[in-house]
Amino acid sequence: MKSQAVFFHAGCPVCVEAEHSVLSALDRSRYDVEVVHLGTDKRKLPDAERLGVKSVPALALDGHVFHINFGASLSDLK
Amino acid sequence: MKSQAVFFHAGCPVCVEAEHSVLSALDRSRYDVEVVHLGTDKRKLPDAERLGVKSVPALALDGHVFHINFGASLSDLK
Repeated sequence: MKSQAVFFHAGCPVCVEAEHSVLSALDRSRYDVEVVHLGTDKRKLPDAERLGVKSVPALALDGHVFHINFGASLSDLK
Repeated sequence: MKSQAVFFHAGCPVCVEAEHSVLSALDRSRYDVEVVHLGTDKRKLPDAERLGVKSVPALALDGHVFHINFGASLSDLK
């Protein structure tokens, strides 16, 4: 069974760079990757907050959240 | 030719978690991975600073630096 990777972003330049580099460097043979745009899909904000996402871009690997650099605070997306 | 990934850490708990999750999720068939412990190998601090590392843990992918959560500032390691 593959592990779960969720990349939260908001289309910001910092997010795009992280998506192009960090997300594309993941081993897709071991990880199912989901990309969530919190700027356009605001219904996902509560899920992200529950997971511990404070800012974007963020990468959740098996439920552990890693904030990658800083693009925008979650509160700015509401 | 493989791309270059360098993971900078200082042995802190936040660093260890990032190493276990993010670093181990990278596709090793495409990335040569180097791990640099800036707490013990202080000679590497100038290289890290030149690359743009401000805090650890940080992951450099082909020269682009991504700070992952926050463990310690580089200035605290000097």
